[in-house]
Amino acid sequence: MQIKVKDLNIETGASVVLLNEIDAAKLNLHPGDRIDIIHGSKRSTAIINIGSLMPKGTAGLTMEIAKEIHARDGTEVEMEPAEQPKSMAAIKQKLNGRRLTYDEVYEIIKDVVGKKLDRNEITAFVVGLHAYGLDLDEAEYMSTAMIKTGDTLELNGKKRIFDKHSIGGIPGDKTTLLVVPIVAAAGLTIPKTSSRAITSAAGTADRAEVLMPVSLSLSEMRHTVEKTNGCVVWGGAIHLAPADDIFIKIEYPFSIDPLLLPSIMSKKKSVGSTDMVLDVPVGETSKIKNVDEAEMLIKDFSMLGSRLGIRLQGAITYGGQPIGHAIGAAAEAQEALGVLEGKVEASDLVDKATSIAGILLEMSGKKNGKELALSILKSGRAEKKFREIIAEQGGDPKIKHEDISIGSYSHVVYSKLSGRVFHIDNIALAYTTRLAGAPLEKQAAIIMHKKLNDAVKEGEPLYTIYARSSVALKDAADYAEKSDAVLVGSGNTMLVKRISMHPKLSSLLFER
Amino acid sequence: MQIKVKDLNIETGASVVLLNEIDAAKLNLHPGDRIDIIHGSKRSTAIINIGSLMPKGTAGLTMEIAKEIHARDGTEVEMEPAEQPKSMAAIKQKLNGRRLTYDEVYEIIKDVVGKKLDRNEITAFVVGLHAYGLDLDEAEYMSTAMIKTGDTLELNGKKRIFDKHSIGGIPGDKTTLLVVPIVAAAGLTIPKTSSRAITSAAGTADRAEVLMPVSLSLSEMRHTVEKTNGCVVWGGAIHLAPADDIFIKIEYPFSIDPLLLPSIMSKKKSVGSTDMVLDVPVGETSKIKNVDEAEMLIKDFSMLGSRLGIRLQGAITYGGQPIGHAIGAAAEAQEALGVLEGKVEASDLVDKATSIAGILLEMSGKKNGKELALSILKSGRAEKKFREIIAEQGGDPKIKHEDISIGSYSHVVYSKLSGRVFHIDNIALAYTTRLAGAPLEKQAAIIMHKKLNDAVKEGEPLYTIYARSSVALKDAADYAEKSDAVLVGSGNTMLVKRISMHPKLSSLLFER
Repeated sequence: MQIKVKDLNIETGASVVLLNEIDAAKLNLHPGDRIDIIHGSKRSTAIINIGSLMPKGTAGLTMEIAKEIHARDGTEVEMEPAEQPKSMAAIKQKLNGRRLTYDEVYEIIKDVVGKKLDRNEITAFVVGLHAYGLDLDEAEYMSTAMIKTGDTLELNGKKRIFDKHSIGGIPGDKTTLLVVPIVAAAGLTIPKTSSRAITSAAGTADRAEVLMPVSLSLSEMRHTVEKTNGCVVWGGAIHLAPADDIFIKIEYPFSIDPLLLPSIMSKKKSVGSTDMVLDVPVGETSKIKNVDEAEMLIKDFSMLGSRLGIRLQGAITYGGQPIGHAIGAAAEAQEALGVLEGKVEASDLVDKATSIAGILLEMSGKKNGKELALSILKSGRAEKKFREIIAEQGGDPKIKHEDISIGSYSHVVYSKLSGRVFHIDNIALAYTTRLAGAPLEKQAAIIMHKKLNDAVKEGEPLYTIYARSSVALKDAADYAEKSDAVLVGSGNTMLVKRISMHPKLSSLLFER
Repeated sequence: MQIKVKDLNIETGASVVLLNEIDAAKLNLHPGDRIDIIHGSKRSTAIINIGSLMPKGTAGLTMEIAKEIHARDGTEVEMEPAEQPKSMAAIKQKLNGRRLTYDEVYEIIKDVVGKKLDRNEITAFVVGLHAYGLDLDEAEYMSTAMIKTGDTLELNGKKRIFDKHSIGGIPGDKTTLLVVPIVAAAGLTIPKTSSRAITSAAGTADRAEVLMPVSLSLSEMRHTVEKTNGCVVWGGAIHLAPADDIFIKIEYPFSIDPLLLPSIMSKKKSVGSTDMVLDVPVGETSKIKNVDEAEMLIKDFSMLGSRLGIRLQGAITYGGQPIGHAIGAAAEAQEALGVLEGKVEASDLVDKATSIAGILLEMSGKKNGKELALSILKSGRAEKKFREIIAEQGGDPKIKHEDISIGSYSHVVYSKLSGRVFHIDNIALAYTTRLAGAPLEKQAAIIMHKKLNDAVKEGEPLYTIYARSSVALKDAADYAEKSDAVLVGSGNTMLVKRISMHPKLSSLLFER
């Protein structure tokens, strides 16, 4: 059938053709069916959507398909019914609870990346994976297929590549900003990619961006690592395992994450990692609630790692409260830089960073990893290395921690009681920082004045909220005053928490 | 934030706003997030999609949302982040395998019908239902919510309304075209709605449309039933349980149908049915493979029926071969009309129709239902009633079966052996008819010359394929000659089937 093209001039992430419902009915075509669209020697398959506003005899094409067949407004094209792609047959297998072969997984991932499956079809797959689960074989297949369909970092002559990943969920966790320079200063290669915040107050990419550009190309990243042994770049700017970037956008509204393991491990393998530490913070208000759960997760990651040729060690860390004192991208960059300069104290941050760096150093064959990491930090070699990385990524290597500014509007939350801090709610603190403007506003912040077990007198400040606008500050302050984020009591206080509602509780817990 | 509207002038079935990825990143908005769009006193919530072709500072609106807030190209509107609707929280419950309350189900159905959930979100829900199943309570809630969010047929003074439904899957099943006039002629009220073929050769609405208009409005349908006691209309033209029409379009590409029971029962309840027969054809190549499976299905339907105030009786019917001799809308209408006229013989069709009509007659309190049904048919009262219905729906009441024409291109499939027909493949016959042009081409047909257990001589015709174009005929004939759709053997022939591939096998099995 001949039909006239209307270029919709929109891009939906898939090759979609919008047909008038009468045309579609005439051809007995239904939403989700496929047709081949032929224009001269170009032929491509599109997924049918029905829209009654489309004029009769007209096929509305998304940018993806219009580009592929070189069609513009008014181009006459031929349409022919087409079969469902093999990937749809594979998706149907999963929807009926069957295990997938490598070939099936590869067909799906290839079509996700190639925009041959629409959002709807990918959703069905992801929900199917969530409901039925995936076994170790399938996780390996997913990882391998995601690596194969993306770019990879090739570093000349490096036999071992080190990496770290945190399951996340702890506000103020700027550990990576210390681990990368410590490990790189020791001569290990650590090409670190990081993510931005989706539902948290800051991601490592957001923190690092306060100090230097992080949206590097793959060749800029390679150049930085070859020159300095390390980097801290935003993974979203490069095409490592791009299927995962599509999956995560689709999973996000549903707060499901069935691809957690293959997602993380494929990104690591794509930069050539051979040795990694997985940081699993455990705490009542963090993502992973207890040590048993953390151990199971680490076991799963280790098994997948060994399938992919990545040696993995787990680090279960204390996640009962924020790391250091600062929450929010700018405040955290300031704190991390201050610690590297030896001018700011944050004993828990230093302990966590040197523990994780120490494991990596020991995996490389060095002895007394933690002590070595601490000496690299204390000696200023880590700071020097960090400034090299900042310079190489295009930042100002002379930046001082006191150069970094945070929001000028502030609100102090005071203790109404005397005693000790006996409970801190990570989720409430992250949400407060978001109300103050994070992660969009890097200067939105919380500075903790008291942490767990600190003695507090009635009327003493517990934490201060910073924002760049009075409106945002008020939202954050109003919430904070009702949030019981930091609880103070005497030694025998038993009421941990009055029930307070976090409007975004479940989505806050979703961050990869 | 102020933003300028671009009317995308497309309709996607949901209130969607398309934002430039830079604008979205600035606002930390992700696909699937919601924003309120405010224009003067109008405010409505839209679901965010990201498209890099959208100019910066511009929000592309689908027709659904543009209409709601009275915005056109260039209108300046205000945008504010909005929470996920309650229906999304309910969907997430199902995605995690939890049972839903009536309120949760109602929120979902209301937002499906109100276009407040996009295709993607509805897909997640449907796949969740498919993977985790739904219990009797949930099936009742779904049915009730689907009825409540649609139109209903109100018939004055009718205490009992009769209905029938077939699970389908048998080619040539024109039973409804006989049951409705028989039952209506006996004085029972039977406001029958039917569907069109999706993946089969013909639906009852397609068959009836050969004889009369079937796209009636609800008031036209009511008028017909009040005048004649019956009707045969297309359900797609009226808004009975419209949520189901949306669900079925979404389920179709995935060949899943978790809403089978609530879907059918809500449509029946929407026309006020109090008594119905569920026809479950059983056969090796029909949808339901054996009597046990059929009994379980009927039990489920009965339990849901009793929750909804519908008395239901099941009729397990023989589904091992086509009903009558004709397959394809026109040929089937011809055969049904011929039988009503007493001029065409089809003993299996008459037996099935009078059995089902008989059950309905007995449910109404009459004795010897089947005999009564047969006498109504033989006496010509059913034909007279059918012509009343045809006239009332706007068709020609004088139409004769010989007035109906079928495709003029034909191909005869001959037997290569002598013996008896010992196996018939329903799916292969349906697929052949589709290759000949069905269901779009109503004149595409198969006429069976031999049926199960008929004696056949080598070289005798088994069936004839009819099409309206030589190209379609050739496609159908080429497939048919390789399909082994009708197998002939001696009394002890044991080879039932050589493996032949049906390219659309699994999707052919999907029809509600």
